Order: sequence, then C-alpha cells, then structure tokens
Amino acid sequence: MAHLIKSHEDLINPHIRGLGISATLAINARSKELIEQGKTVYRFGLGQSPFPVPDLVVSALKLNAIQKDYLPVRGLQQLREAVADFHRRKDEVDIQPDCVLIGPGSKELVFLLQLVFNGEIIVVSPGWVSYVPQAKILNNELSFIHSTFEAKWQLTPKLFSDFLKKRNHPDKPALMILNYPGNPDGVSLTKESLVEIAALARAHHIFILSDEIYGQLDHKGKHISLARFYPEGTIISSGLSKWCGAGGWRLGTFAFPKNMKWLLDGMAIVASETYTSVSAPIQYAAVQAFKGGIEIEEYLWQARKILAGLGNECVHILRAAGVKVHDPVGGFYLFLDFSNFSQRLHERGIKSSSQLCLQLLDDTGVALLQGSSFYRSEEELTARMAYVDFAGPRALAAARTIPLHEQLPDDFIKTYCHKVIKGVKEIVQWLTK
Amino acid sequence: MAHLIKSHEDLINPHIRGLGISATLAINARSKELIEQGKTVYRFGLGQSPFPVPDLVVSALKLNAIQKDYLPVRGLQQLREAVADFHRRKDEVDIQPDCVLIGPGSKELVFLLQLVFNGEIIVVSPGWVSYVPQAKILNNELSFIHSTFEAKWQLTPKLFSDFLKKRNHPDKPALMILNYPGNPDGVSLTKESLVEIAALARAHHIFILSDEIYGQLDHKGKHISLARFYPEGTIISSGLSKWCGAGGWRLGTFAFPKNMKWLLDGMAIVASETYTSVSAPIQYAAVQAFKGGIEIEEYLWQARKILAGLGNECVHILRAAGVKVHDPVGGFYLFLDFSNFSQRLHERGIKSSSQLCLQLLDDTGVALLQGSSFYRSEEELTARMAYVDFAGPRALAAARTIPLHEQLPDDFIKTYCHKVIKGVKEIVQWLTK
Repeated sequence: MAHLIKSHEDLINPHIRGLGISATLAINARSKELIEQGKTVYRFGLGQSPFPVPDLVVSALKLNAIQKDYLPVRGLQQLREAVADFHRRKDEVDIQPDCVLIGPGSKELVFLLQLVFNGEIIVVSPGWVSYVPQAKILNNELSFIHSTFEAKWQLTPKLFSDFLKKRNHPDKPALMILNYPGNPDGVSLTKESLVEIAALARAHHIFILSDEIYGQLDHKGKHISLARFYPEGTIISSGLSKWCGAGGWRLGTFAFPKNMKWLLDGMAIVASETYTSVSAPIQYAAVQAFKGGIEIEEYLWQARKILAGLGNECVHILRAAGVKVHDPVGGFYLFLDFSNFSQRLHERGIKSSSQLCLQLLDDTGVALLQGSSFYRSEEELTARMAYVDFAGPRALAAARTIPLHEQLPDDFIKTYCHKVIKGVKEIVQWLTK
Repeated sequence: MAHLIKSHEDLINPHIRGLGISATLAINARSKELIEQGKTVYRFGLGQSPFPVPDLVVSALKLNAIQKDYLPVRGLQQLREAVADFHRRKDEVDIQPDCVLIGPGSKELVFLLQLVFNGEIIVVSPGWVSYVPQAKILNNELSFIHSTFEAKWQLTPKLFSDFLKKRNHPDKPALMILNYPGNPDGVSLTKESLVEIAALARAHHIFILSDEIYGQLDHKGKHISLARFYPEGTIISSGLSKWCGAGGWRLGTFAFPKNMKWLLDGMAIVASETYTSVSAPIQYAAVQAFKGGIEIEEYLWQARKILAGLGNECVHILRAAGVKVHDPVGGFYLFLDFSNFSQRLHERGIKSSSQLCLQLLDDTGVALLQGSSFYRSEEELTARMAYVDFAGPRALAAARTIPLHEQLPDDFIKTYCHKVIKGVKEIVQWLTK
C-alpha cells in the first residue's frame, strides 16, 4: 500500500498545501495546552463573546429541539423575514426577505461568496484572519489596501481613493470586504467616512461585502450600516455569533440588495451542494433572536456597557505604559501597536509579531494573536487582544442589578473582569521589564 | 449603477453557471407548489427519513441548548470517541477518535474531500445527486462507471475491473465514491462483492469514499462496511440524517484509516476556513445517538421492519404491473425502470426521464426524481422513488405495540403507510392506462 502512504503532498490540492489551521483557532489550542500544564492563561486570543446566549433564545432552541426536517437552502422563511426586519429596524435599509441568505456561520457565507463571485477580491489590512486564506484556497485574485495606526487601522476615503487610482484594470469586476466595528481593531467607521466610501465605490463599480457582525456591539448602540449610503452595491453580513453570544451555534446571515440577487442565487446553488441548509432547531431559535424585543435590547445594552467600560480601562493602562492603541468603539478587540518598544524588544531578540506573541505567552501566560495573522508584515510589532476572558454570565447578572441608565460603578470592572485587567498589567510589566 | 445589474453571467464563477439547485431539493419545491394549489402530492421525491429523532437524542439536545462555545474544528472529542466506537461496534473496523471528522452534513464533507484531494474522482452511475455537481463546481477530473439493471444498479467487481483495464493513466491518483445501501437504488453490496472490490482497489491504489450513510437502515441490520476488507484505503461516511431521522440537524461524519490522516488534516484546514465547527448543541446531542444503546437499537429495529415491509409491498405491486425493480435491501429508495413501457410512453410523447417525472407529477400528483439526476442518460426511462410519505411517528408507535421479534401484521402497511401504497397504485394506473 506504498502509494497510499507516500508523497501525500502531491495528493493535496496545491492551493491548500502550506495553509495551517485558522490562526484564531490555533491560538486557542495552544492556550489549552498551557492550561493543561497547570499554567494561568489569559485567553485574549480567541474572539468569542463572553456572554451567554439570551435565555429567551435558549428557550426557543429547547422548544424547537424536535424540528428535524431539511429546511429550505436559503433559510427558514420566518427567519429570513426576521433578518430582513432586523436590518430595516436596526440599519434603516430596505432588505427583502427573499434577499436574505442563512448559512452555518458568516465565515461559510464569505467562502461561498468568494467561490461564486468572478472577479478581484479587495481586502483591507489589518483584516479578519479568514478572508485571505479563503481567497487562497479558491485561487482568487487578491488585492490589499494597507491601513495604518494613524488611519485607525480602518479604510479611509483617502486610502480607498489612492488604491482606486492605482488599479491596473479599473474595469475588472471587484468585491471589497469591509469589516467594522473592526476585527482586529475595535474601531468603527464614521458616518462621514461611510458616505465618502460609498460614493467612491459607486463611481468605480466596486461591490462591497460589509461585514457588520459586530454592529450590535457598537459600544454606544450607534452602528451605521454602509448599506444606508450604498444600498445597491452592499451585502451586509451578520449572524448570531457575536451580539447574541452564540458563536458555537453557527448561524450567519447575508442581506443583499434586490439588484444583486443573482449573486445570492449563485451562492444558493453552491449551498445546495454543500451545507444544504442550516441546522433546523438553530434556525427556529434564531428567529427569536432576530425578532428582538425588550429582552434582547436589555441584553445588548448591558453587554455594551460592560465591554465599553472594560475596553476603556484596558486602553487606559496600555496607553499610560506607551502602547499605541485607539479608543474602542465597538466589539471586544484592541489592536496593540508595540512600535514604541521596538528597540527594547529587538534587543531581547523579538523581531516579529509571531515571536512577540509566542514569547509573551510563554513568559506571562497572556495569549494575543500576532499582527501577521491580520495581513500585517511579520516585522511590524502588532497584535490583537480580545478582552473577553471574564465570566460573562456573572458580569451580566451583576450589571442587571444597576439601573439601566446609570453608569457601572467604579469598581465594577475590577470586580467582574479582574482577569482581563491582570492580563493587561502582565503585558505592561513584560514590556517594561 | 449599470455595471452592477448588467451581464451577471460574467460575474459568476464559470463552473457554477448552468448548475441548478440540487435536484432532490428542487423536486421538493415543485411538490410544495402543487400542495399549495390544493392537490394531493405523493412526496416520493425528497429522501427524508419519515421517522422522528429518537426521544433520547431530542432530550440530549434540550439539555445542551446552553452550549455556546466554538467547538474544535474536527469535532467535539466525546463525539469523535462515540463515532469511532460506533464504527468499531457496528462495522468491526478499528477507527481511532483522532481519525474522525465531524461536519455539517456528510454532503459538506464530501465537498471538502473533493476540494482537498488532488486527483481523479470516480463515480458510479446511478449515484447520489450531489457527487457530480460538486466535482463540477470544483472543476475536478471526473470518470464514470455505468451500472445497469442487470448489475442491480451497483458497482460489481466485473464493472470495476473493466473500468480499471481501460484507464488512460493508471498511475493517476484516484478516489472512487461508493454508496450502499444505495441512493437511488436501495440495493446493497454483498460480502463477496466487497471482498473483490477491495482487492481490486488495493491492487490499483484507488482510494474509496464509502458512503454508508444508510448502513444502519439495512433492512436486516446486516450492513457490512467495505472498510473491513480495505481498511487502509477506505473513508467511511455516516451521519445523523438517515438512520437517526435528523436530516435537518445537519451532522455528518467521516472515519479515516490512520494512514490517510493527511487527508483529514487537509480537510480540517478548509473546515477551519469555512464552517469552523458543527453547531455545539447538535454535536453534544449527537454523542447520545452514536453511543447507541437499547433505545437506539429498538428504534432502528422498528424502522427497519417498517421500511422492509413497505418496500417489499411496493415492489410487489410495481413488479406485477411490469415495472422493473429490485428487491429493497436497505434505506428507503427504489430505482424504477420503465423500459417495458417505453413504446407506450413514446407514443404519449414521453421520451426522457424528466418528461416522465413531470407528466406523472402533473397527471397523478406522484413526485419521483428522474434518472438523469443520477447520471443516467436522458432517454433512459428510470426514476427514483423514496417510499417515505407516511406518518413515521404514528407508524413507529404502532409498531411498538407488536412484540419485537414478531412480524408486522398483514394490514400494518395498508393502515399506516396507505398513502405510499396509493401512490404506487397511481403510478401503475398511469402506466397502463
């Protein structure tokens, strides 16, 4: 049986050789190893919501545990209606139920989009870890727009405009992937930027996948969808994973403009030959989540309060020590720029973001995710911190004892998110030692 | 915005243009339309188990509704252990837990396998509707082995050997997809055939994906896995959809031999960039299903009794009328060969399996799936019948009132599966009118 066990390399699709397991998932595995060795690990690597799934939605899953039928490929009709209504209500954009596609996670939907769309894929750096490996697996043509600390790690109209001027084939169909509030940066786009980006995209016929999965975790509840200003060219991505705390449930949503339904149709064909439809009990439960209502809004309100308080506290400590970082606007990430420490780190033999994260993890137990996973150059000393390593259910219960419109008391973060604060202090100590 | 709404064709991956929604799902949609018009439809098109998910497994889902964490890409450890144990217990093959991969349906896993494996894909015709569209989406090299009524629609050692002799590049890596008990044919492979097929595959270095998802629905509970005779080259596919009645839950499993773990590793990379992991509550519940035990065995026993009784009754009626069909061995399909009626059908203007199914549906309300969806030539007058349009929960409850080792009483099928019998009689009437 020599043939079956030799030269496996040749037997694997060449576009997959050399790719590793998704970086966010790999860091989680490494952290688990250290924990098993009895070490304290500050799990700032994996971006999982610390909060439980709202009770209402868990109850809906229990009620629907008997649902066993294959559901329609594009999604359960009630759910597509609830998602369309969600975007109308939250984003003030006119989404029709038949322009909604339900998938087993928005990651799978992004993959299908990249498989079906025939053109250039434009990615902003830093950007979410899976956009580019997906493009590589599919052998797609890929272009980058590199942002900077000064540009708050996000796309700016200036960066976009410069990129468009330099395109070699300006008529080539292109799809740009935006993500805000941003993973890895926690920064969001202002209304002014969105208006200008929309105008440029319209003028240059660029389709946009606007990954707004952290939209409902804008810390002030003031997320604005790009689709408001570029309705005819924007697909909005959302799902249960972040704002509903249900990452492990695997349900993502895409909302298309009517005139881009041909793209949804193409994706539905591939969906019918791959995942078929999303798990039926999960879809029925998700209806409850997207329908919203007082319970969901209260949950979101508390989540935002806690995340804003904690994010700001982390920034306060890090900035005081000299780490470059922006004020968090939404989600639960900070993108840390250690360039002020580059000389000292170089002297300690740390010359890349991977070395930095590995050494930091081994020395202190703090798990961050290296900037290079977000398409930054290896030598740029940046890393993503997910400030989620605290007992979400406990923090949520405590926050609920405080009247909604009151601020969290001064010691709240110290009491309920102490591990995150301790981890941040570990980073600072390690940097300045 | 002319660019965004014109010439969509060019904006779609050329390998997807021309593909439609998966044929089994399309027939379901058409049937629903007729039902909405108030017509009686005999839903023999979609292959969904008529039985409910076992109570034990539904309870496990309710208990695990709070599970919200992202699970490991390859699957929950307890589930991988339960699946490995399932194959050891049921199939007498030595599967290790770390050689199990969990996916959102076995269809998604077949797709990932086709994406990752770098070589020729060999498909037996008739074969399940999605193998070939997947290969087309991925632009894979594809070869067919065409079976016949005389060969019971399955691969025979003779057909395999003839195919192997004629291969142009006998050294090219190849993966053959087998499926038994068969969809669309309900026929299975004998031990003797399996031994010979294994020897040929071994001698010619052909990897085999053995899709045994209907294995536990062998009507006598005597399914034999190919992996017993070709352990080093066989991947076994299974899942909850068929024997556990949970098609809509979306959970499939692949079990690899140790020496093919490199292929699992490649698939896990793509999994981590697409579906991430299977829905957590579903995976926890699936542990209960794969662990088995008395409740599950009793459920399977009843399901087999009912399916065997019903399948045999259908064959009895159809064969008496002149339809060529084999005795059902497992699963819930019959592949009907109408060639004895070809002259009469031609006279009625019916010259293809699609025309046959469309006319039959419109005239009688009986939904079958045309043979051409299973890679048969358009002019071959064949069609798949899924004998599942009866109230599974009710039939199951009734069967449970009869001692396990007793046969079902004579009128059982007529009482609890009358719609299927009525539909079969409609087919016969329509053919002979």
